[in-house]
Amino acid sequence: MNGAENLLETLVASGMEICFANPGTSEMQLVSAIGNRPDMRAVLCLFEGVVAGAADGYARMADKPALTLLHLGSGFANSMANQHNAMRAHVPLVNMVGDHATWHVKYDAPLTSDVAAHAAISSSWVRASTSADDLALAGAQAVHAALQGAGKIATFIAPANHAWEAATQKVNPLPRPQRPQAPAAAIEQAAALLTAGGQAGNCALFLGGQALRENNLQLAAQIAETTGARLMCETFPARLQRGKGRPLVQRLPYFAEPAAAQLQDLDRMILIGAKAPVSFFAYPGKASWLAPEDCEMATLAEVDQDIHAALAALAQRLGLDPEKAGGADSPGAETAATATPPEPESEPDKLTPLAIGQSLARMLPENAIVVDEAATCGLKLFAVTEQAAAHDWLTLTGGAIGQGLPLSLGAALACPDRKVVNLQADGSAMYTVQALWSMAREQTDVVCVIMNNRSYAILNIELARVGATAPTPKTLSMLDLSRPDLDWVSLATGMGVPASRAETPRQFETQLAAALSQPGPHLIEALVVQNM
Amino acid sequence: MNGAENLLETLVASGMEICFANPGTSEMQLVSAIGNRPDMRAVLCLFEGVVAGAADGYARMADKPALTLLHLGSGFANSMANQHNAMRAHVPLVNMVGDHATWHVKYDAPLTSDVAAHAAISSSWVRASTSADDLALAGAQAVHAALQGAGKIATFIAPANHAWEAATQKVNPLPRPQRPQAPAAAIEQAAALLTAGGQAGNCALFLGGQALRENNLQLAAQIAETTGARLMCETFPARLQRGKGRPLVQRLPYFAEPAAAQLQDLDRMILIGAKAPVSFFAYPGKASWLAPEDCEMATLAEVDQDIHAALAALAQRLGLDPEKAGGADSPGAETAATATPPEPESEPDKLTPLAIGQSLARMLPENAIVVDEAATCGLKLFAVTEQAAAHDWLTLTGGAIGQGLPLSLGAALACPDRKVVNLQADGSAMYTVQALWSMAREQTDVVCVIMNNRSYAILNIELARVGATAPTPKTLSMLDLSRPDLDWVSLATGMGVPASRAETPRQFETQLAAALSQPGPHLIEALVVQNM
Repeated sequence: MNGAENLLETLVASGMEICFANPGTSEMQLVSAIGNRPDMRAVLCLFEGVVAGAADGYARMADKPALTLLHLGSGFANSMANQHNAMRAHVPLVNMVGDHATWHVKYDAPLTSDVAAHAAISSSWVRASTSADDLALAGAQAVHAALQGAGKIATFIAPANHAWEAATQKVNPLPRPQRPQAPAAAIEQAAALLTAGGQAGNCALFLGGQALRENNLQLAAQIAETTGARLMCETFPARLQRGKGRPLVQRLPYFAEPAAAQLQDLDRMILIGAKAPVSFFAYPGKASWLAPEDCEMATLAEVDQDIHAALAALAQRLGLDPEKAGGADSPGAETAATATPPEPESEPDKLTPLAIGQSLARMLPENAIVVDEAATCGLKLFAVTEQAAAHDWLTLTGGAIGQGLPLSLGAALACPDRKVVNLQADGSAMYTVQALWSMAREQTDVVCVIMNNRSYAILNIELARVGATAPTPKTLSMLDLSRPDLDWVSLATGMGVPASRAETPRQFETQLAAALSQPGPHLIEALVVQNM
Repeated sequence: MNGAENLLETLVASGMEICFANPGTSEMQLVSAIGNRPDMRAVLCLFEGVVAGAADGYARMADKPALTLLHLGSGFANSMANQHNAMRAHVPLVNMVGDHATWHVKYDAPLTSDVAAHAAISSSWVRASTSADDLALAGAQAVHAALQGAGKIATFIAPANHAWEAATQKVNPLPRPQRPQAPAAAIEQAAALLTAGGQAGNCALFLGGQALRENNLQLAAQIAETTGARLMCETFPARLQRGKGRPLVQRLPYFAEPAAAQLQDLDRMILIGAKAPVSFFAYPGKASWLAPEDCEMATLAEVDQDIHAALAALAQRLGLDPEKAGGADSPGAETAATATPPEPESEPDKLTPLAIGQSLARMLPENAIVVDEAATCGLKLFAVTEQAAAHDWLTLTGGAIGQGLPLSLGAALACPDRKVVNLQADGSAMYTVQALWSMAREQTDVVCVIMNNRSYAILNIELARVGATAPTPKTLSMLDLSRPDLDWVSLATGMGVPASRAETPRQFETQLAAALSQPGPHLIEALVVQNM
């Protein structure tokens, strides 16, 4: 048995089931070892940004890490933007990165670079194996490191010779780490703040991470209802369970002004799996801190702590019966079924984000997964799908665009019995467009809706917001995706994904119905008219 | 005048003329400042890997740096693979990277990361500005740092508020650095080794960097002819001037075995702008050092030194008249016109790399630029184009695939009066496929020939070479680009580049003739049959 085979034995025993791969010469033994294991699924991706984004999507939906296989420092570099997003999503992820044979590094061959320096930027744990026997141990430790807290990125580096040299020591999995508990004082402080009096509605539970799963949302809603607090969540949740029968949560807006407006009446915030809200970017003369300056903050549970236990303890402390939380028949919480209906469409013939959202709200299948990288269009789409059938909503956690298509690929592989709908901005989609090919190869049930507005629309807004002077045609050309227009039907079919183009709400609805009714991937290019 | 405008004033005065850009919110003031300058060309790229690869191609052909515009750490990360290749190509490159406003960093907003840690991996110089006034100075210093030696990567980081705050101090360009001279002792040592006797042909001039420009090649050829030395070059030159009338240079093969065979008779090597040859990857039981162990090595000039002066000094030291070097009528050097004709095609109906190369050898226009990222196909293409019209041959210097399309874009923008022919492997092309859109927008004269063999062919070879066991279907699926086949005609037309598909040598030749005769970009998908 060589080092690679011994490693795979340990990784499988540690619970790893899938590997998103873009290998090179230095990983051939690892490829071969994976190829010999029926219990490790291999998914080839044609770019490393797809590898990392798919591993993130898998982890968000499977609640366990996927393995990646990457080729030295430069291969890792290509994955780094989506590693950043995965880090911000607090998911577990295990990177397996090949490197030159140990004796080869000193020659500084062309592809030589400092793999660990690349990995250290987003990984919480990095180490290279020191021998063929040590390689499996490095793998076991990486899985262990990835499972710390809510989930971490752990990267182990496999010099090529450690993969091909003989290994003799079997390495067992390490025990699964437990999430740390929030301290008792945090429960007390949260309870005290919630019951401190003040105006009803001037206190908010501000939720992120695991607090946005249905069982925890029901607990939080029960607490909110009892205390009069508002239920809010971070702008870019990794996974928010919402829709019919689930508690309504106010999502913090993206732009600083409406975000600050939403927070302006608060004098108390209880942070649960989320950090205090700050603006995404800074703007001239505007504060980055969004809550009122005198708003008291208390943390019930950090994102890495046991959020469910903390919420249950708080509910109990408040005299509630946590067992009663949950279900659409929960008497307390306002649920989506009781929310206000969406506004009527003022221009029924135009394919606006609102029109798309309304179709989606009607047609989204029960238990769908929505991957939202729709940028400027996403805000409206989120608002009008509040009453759709129960679903999971996944967002761009780290702001590094090019995540939506890969995330959808990974989510679909984690949940083969659920439909994935990817609401995708055109500019962002181009970064990792190669994901479409893997969707076709794996025949994942993903419906990609490309919001083609032929521009980086968000930047046209931001240009004015940062106080830039009147833009010249050249300035605007740097924010504009026309000349030539991208043809998404050609791009998708070129990678084996059936595609169609919609220019009216009726066309869109017909195409969406068809795509949702068939297995396998489909792409709808929606030529959207934007009314911001 | 704000910091961004003041910076642009300095960058233009420092000789910067073009900016490859993929901006975000934190760069809006920089975009606006560029948009107001008619003397700074702006080229929007839809992915940062295209930005860096295009800047590399521009620098190789223009012999001066391009500017990039990148969005924080994650935007920089997407460019890093091609930054690595540019570093290995020893080209000058100036990265301008936006970051959060200085006061915003402490809030750790979602897109926050350590920009400098990203940049430090391939840059020789990195610094963030400390004020709006300092921003222009950082820019001037970056240009100066990029022009050190043969060329370096210099990265300056622009916090958003330094771009929008007022700047009052005009900053002049720094003086252009001179290349250091090779020491006199190096000239003496090289001369001594060359005239040390031994078998004729057992000494080689091993060339890289600027030594591969025509004037230096003529000098080297004159020296080789006089001393009986062989003229060889590194496997992956940044820019080799070759073809009719230019000295023939033996290019070191990629695989270690034929490379070692080519070197096996050498007892002396003179390194000129190149490092001693080592294998690209390590293999079990094979040496990484390729020259015979007892081969004496001497360095005439490092890649960063003044290679032309060193060659001229060596020629003079050997009693030659450097003024006489050069031109096809130089009596000494063997030139391409006298080289052996290419082997006849054994299977005239099959579209092999040889058939493609033979068409190219006949049809390549005078002074063309060939960008070779053809991987396994490239070896044959190089061999059979030795007698083509004079041209420049650019290769993948750092081994990080996904360089060919962007490099072609940048080379074409540097030399608008020359045709670019991109010989491109299919697997590699997918990494930075977004470059096609910028080619269409800028209407660059690039003919992309996609060698579609529907696999990572090199890896199928390497799998056996690293001693992996008999591959399973799953193993092979990780090296295989079929299921589904990529349709390059759809991909190219989806990004606005006219395209056609060739399945026979005759179809290919007809399509190549048409593409070469028209302005603007064209793509030919060549369904190649590979006879390795």
